[in-house]
Amino acid sequence: MNKRPIIIDTDPGIDDALAIAIALYSNELDVKLITTVAGNVGIDKTTYNALRLLKFFQKENVPVAVGADRPLIRSYEDASSVHGKSGMEGYDFEPPTQIPIEENAVNAMRRVIMESKEAITIVAIGPLTNIALLLKIYPEVKKNIKEVVMMGGSASRGNMGVMSEYNVGVDPEAAYILFHSGLEIAMVGLDVGFKALVFPEDSEAIRTMNKTGEMAYCLFKKYRGGSFNTGLKIYDSTALAYLLAPQIYEIVETYVDVELAGSMTAGCTLVDLKGYLKQPHNAKVCIDINQEKFREWFKESIRKCI
Amino acid sequence: MNKRPIIIDTDPGIDDALAIAIALYSNELDVKLITTVAGNVGIDKTTYNALRLLKFFQKENVPVAVGADRPLIRSYEDASSVHGKSGMEGYDFEPPTQIPIEENAVNAMRRVIMESKEAITIVAIGPLTNIALLLKIYPEVKKNIKEVVMMGGSASRGNMGVMSEYNVGVDPEAAYILFHSGLEIAMVGLDVGFKALVFPEDSEAIRTMNKTGEMAYCLFKKYRGGSFNTGLKIYDSTALAYLLAPQIYEIVETYVDVELAGSMTAGCTLVDLKGYLKQPHNAKVCIDINQEKFREWFKESIRKCI
Amino acid sequence: MNKRPIIIDTDPGIDDALAIAIALYSNELDVKLITTVAGNVGIDKTTYNALRLLKFFQKENVPVAVGADRPLIRSYEDASSVHGKSGMEGYDFEPPTQIPIEENAVNAMRRVIMESKEAITIVAIGPLTNIALLLKIYPEVKKNIKEVVMMGGSASRGNMGVMSEYNVGVDPEAAYILFHSGLEIAMVGLDVGFKALVFPEDSEAIRTMNKTGEMAYCLFKKYRGGSFNTGLKIYDSTALAYLLAPQIYEIVETYVDVELAGSMTAGCTLVDLKGYLKQPHNAKVCIDINQEKFREWFKESIRKCI
Amino acid sequence: MNKRPIIIDTDPGIDDALAIAIALYSNELDVKLITTVAGNVGIDKTTYNALRLLKFFQKENVPVAVGADRPLIRSYEDASSVHGKSGMEGYDFEPPTQIPIEENAVNAMRRVIMESKEAITIVAIGPLTNIALLLKIYPEVKKNIKEVVMMGGSASRGNMGVMSEYNVGVDPEAAYILFHSGLEIAMVGLDVGFKALVFPEDSEAIRTMNKTGEMAYCLFKKYRGGSFNTGLKIYDSTALAYLLAPQIYEIVETYVDVELAGSMTAGCTLVDLKGYLKQPHNAKVCIDINQEKFREWFKESIRKCI
Repeated sequence: MNKRPIIIDTDPGIDDALAIAIALYSNELDVKLITTVAGNVGIDKTTYNALRLLKFFQKENVPVAVGADRPLIRSYEDASSVHGKSGMEGYDFEPPTQIPIEENAVNAMRRVIMESKEAITIVAIGPLTNIALLLKIYPEVKKNIKEVVMMGGSASRGNMGVMSEYNVGVDPEAAYILFHSGLEIAMVGLDVGFKALVFPEDSEAIRTMNKTGEMAYCLFKKYRGGSFNTGLKIYDSTALAYLLAPQIYEIVETYVDVELAGSMTAGCTLVDLKGYLKQPHNAKVCIDINQEKFREWFKESIRKCI
Repeated sequence: MNKRPIIIDTDPGIDDALAIAIALYSNELDVKLITTVAGNVGIDKTTYNALRLLKFFQKENVPVAVGADRPLIRSYEDASSVHGKSGMEGYDFEPPTQIPIEENAVNAMRRVIMESKEAITIVAIGPLTNIALLLKIYPEVKKNIKEVVMMGGSASRGNMGVMSEYNVGVDPEAAYILFHSGLEIAMVGLDVGFKALVFPEDSEAIRTMNKTGEMAYCLFKKYRGGSFNTGLKIYDSTALAYLLAPQIYEIVETYVDVELAGSMTAGCTLVDLKGYLKQPHNAKVCIDINQEKFREWFKESIRKCI
Repeated sequence: MNKRPIIIDTDPGIDDALAIAIALYSNELDVKLITTVAGNVGIDKTTYNALRLLKFFQKENVPVAVGADRPLIRSYEDASSVHGKSGMEGYDFEPPTQIPIEENAVNAMRRVIMESKEAITIVAIGPLTNIALLLKIYPEVKKNIKEVVMMGGSASRGNMGVMSEYNVGVDPEAAYILFHSGLEIAMVGLDVGFKALVFPEDSEAIRTMNKTGEMAYCLFKKYRGGSFNTGLKIYDSTALAYLLAPQIYEIVETYVDVELAGSMTAGCTLVDLKGYLKQPHNAKVCIDINQEKFREWFKESIRKCI
Repeated sequence: MNKRPIIIDTDPGIDDALAIAIALYSNELDVKLITTVAGNVGIDKTTYNALRLLKFFQKENVPVAVGADRPLIRSYEDASSVHGKSGMEGYDFEPPTQIPIEENAVNAMRRVIMESKEAITIVAIGPLTNIALLLKIYPEVKKNIKEVVMMGGSASRGNMGVMSEYNVGVDPEAAYILFHSGLEIAMVGLDVGFKALVFPEDSEAIRTMNKTGEMAYCLFKKYRGGSFNTGLKIYDSTALAYLLAPQIYEIVETYVDVELAGSMTAGCTLVDLKGYLKQPHNAKVCIDINQEKFREWFKESIRKCI
């Protein structure tokens, strides 16, 4: 089988680390490029983390390109209060030997997309700043993008503000540009992200599977401290599950828009399941998940790693 | 036992009709005043319906005062496309003999509140225009209001727009004034309203109970046409259930705010369960409901009517 | 000649004091009621000042009714940093003997309007909170209101924010309600207010005219401290000039709207001289003034006072 | 004297044509690049017009790069109702022989800026979309940009909406990005643009000066039809006047921001002359102009052309 060529746009981050692991060791995906963006932590750290991860995964052949250090319009504060100083605390990674390519993220994405025989899938698991800039400056890439699978947004409540999910909430204008781009979009947001949980027994199970499982275990443990006794959300892996195991989701085609003007709701995604906004569908939205199947899929995916 | 004195501010409306029935025949409530507001249908119709209902219920001693014919700021379109031309189609009510009192809704509310020995509870089951005007023009009433129990808002999605519930969405500024008033507020919104269902078998059960049950049956049937085979939402009764059977709810004290500036989210209630907005609690919010117990309570409540 | 019956809605304030003086001693106006509103300083002080002024002017027969202590929606901070602690520093007024009537401002306005044979003119020289509440709760008053002459708004820049004039900027929603009310409106805003200046020589001239001139001189002097060597703006008197000497203005019929949603422009009046908003005219706007004639008119007006 | 190296970002357009003429034949400026953007008319037409102009001016050595075909976020409608079908009606230009370079506007700007020994001045006389994308995707260019001189914005009223000038109003987010970029910015907006007039006698005077003057005469005549008897605004030339004859302006250093959220004021520039927003200065704003000197300068500038 031909592997599906993808670009991962990411801000690692613990949950990014696992999503990247799953992508790199999937038999169905071919990671052509990793681009970094400011999000969970600042751009220097997300880039450093991406490089450390590729070293860890023995995949230093995958190029890394550095992207936006802040959102299009809004001011940026990193989320290191949540994600720890480095964004990936709890495991002693070797320092990277690889360095980022000279092209910036937008130019690298463009090149990879335009050079690819097969249309590229973008897996966007950070704020959408790079994607938005790519689409605005190189609209010609659209014809060779198969789909953008994004982890972000919500059909109901948020995790950054009352009504805003983090990846959309950090850069609402970028998300707006994506949703109004005419591209095929799959939104894998909090509606499944809140339920895509790793439980302590799953964590124990992967710990002894392999090096990746052990690393994940350490990151989880540090992240949760002593309180890891309930499910842990690993949002970004849900975007990979959309590519690799879509059957675990309930997926609805609908219209999605992004509030830009709200004083308390900027970054709210309007997932218009009832058609209030009278717009044609522009996205496939994962609105529910089979939790058990997700857990099985997740463990199987980690098992494939080194 | 002393009956709890209440004012019902309402825009009947089918679900208002049932809520009023339950209030009028409860042993625990003393309906001092009914005030009308534009909402489900225009003010002339909501007032006419209130009067018809009091005739039907043989409670023409309860005074009716006419309130606002439109929201504070926003333009108004009635929802008669949803609620039928009169707002209460399907039952052949006698025309009213009672007429509204001369005082408008705001002045009547003020008088009733100020004259009452016991602090008054306002049960607001329409847009909050009258309540907001009352609080702005007569702030002295606050000291003799026990609580405002409102049917409206949502901790997640809407039923008027993607993120806005009807009663708040019609007049967001009025809701904003209420939530910033410092009063005791109970918000009984879509989080329970979407689940507070009357099923066909319930409808059949109440049909033969009494005249009220028969009337409800007819309204439901007309409203749903041939398709009454799933649960029917009877939102406004949930506000009464809060007063009469609070044990059926899961209730959380939290902070609620109302978006006024959003281009697509105006009228969204921000129910800040996680404290993102860092504000002190200003409302009790019903966030879940025991459906079975609600059905039982509803049928028992109708049984008490004529 | 019949005197034109007016109600003055005001937040005294130095410039209010002069506008009230001019109104009370005009041969053409009959001040039926003074209502107070929070603005330049808080409601207790504006009311106290109104009462002190009526004592000073020996017009304690004019009733004073207390109005809103804050805007409809927005939070309120008084402007006493600009207007001095009391709002009228620099002259030693006697304490009032008159007390406010029992009715609040809205009810008093309603009564005066409804009882008047001749349609009433409202001269609104503070934030428009009372006016907005009046129109919302008693829409029936509209048919006996001849005109609302308001000091506020701007066809260009502001004096509270970059684009917002104080009286509109303090309560934009109230101004919005007025401009969307269908009433006859005259907007006398900063376009003339910035040019309606009293110069030091004018101040000297009125000082010796009479008690009122002396009082004005003292207020001006205190307000400006040692630096009274350029023109001083006396905004509120421009509203009286509209009634008494409209020929000093260039007046344009146009459409005026109020921005409510802007993050930095809330309270900006959109004076649509070019028809961008494609709405029918709803106001007469004073867009220019003959400065010399204004100075003459002002001095003549003060000369008529005690 | 070293000529000052500039890039012109433009949407020709009649007034752009004259600004380009002045730039190309100034002894003080060296036009390194012309980039086009959608604005007065669509991107195909503005690019075609730029190429036609370079042919006309015999300057086909100046490269033209094609830029954004629409704003960052907002939907776009061209202004050809104002500017005529082609954007430059009234003169029979030869078709261009030159074609645009392969690089898009953003990449071409980046290259020219990074390769220049001397810091580059960007003269932006269209919507700011290209500039904003340049700054977001290649922040490294900032260190070799001397200044951005923009024709756009207003310290008071607009010409696209009541409060919005066209170039900012078409793409407010792009303008926001520029004003928040930290670059040296000169804003030459409507405060001088409304007064920088060409009168019929000026038009007659340049008509016989040279080919350029004749072309300008024809464009003006067509644009104004029979009614060219008052001053004609030639906005974009004011940006060149800032570079070549700044002494004709009154220039103030101040803070400028752009409203993004207003329902009627989006695209309003807040020129904070009084410091209401309490932000450090970020722009030099031309707030007044010596009309006579401008007319002289304009005619002298045209005289230098072919």
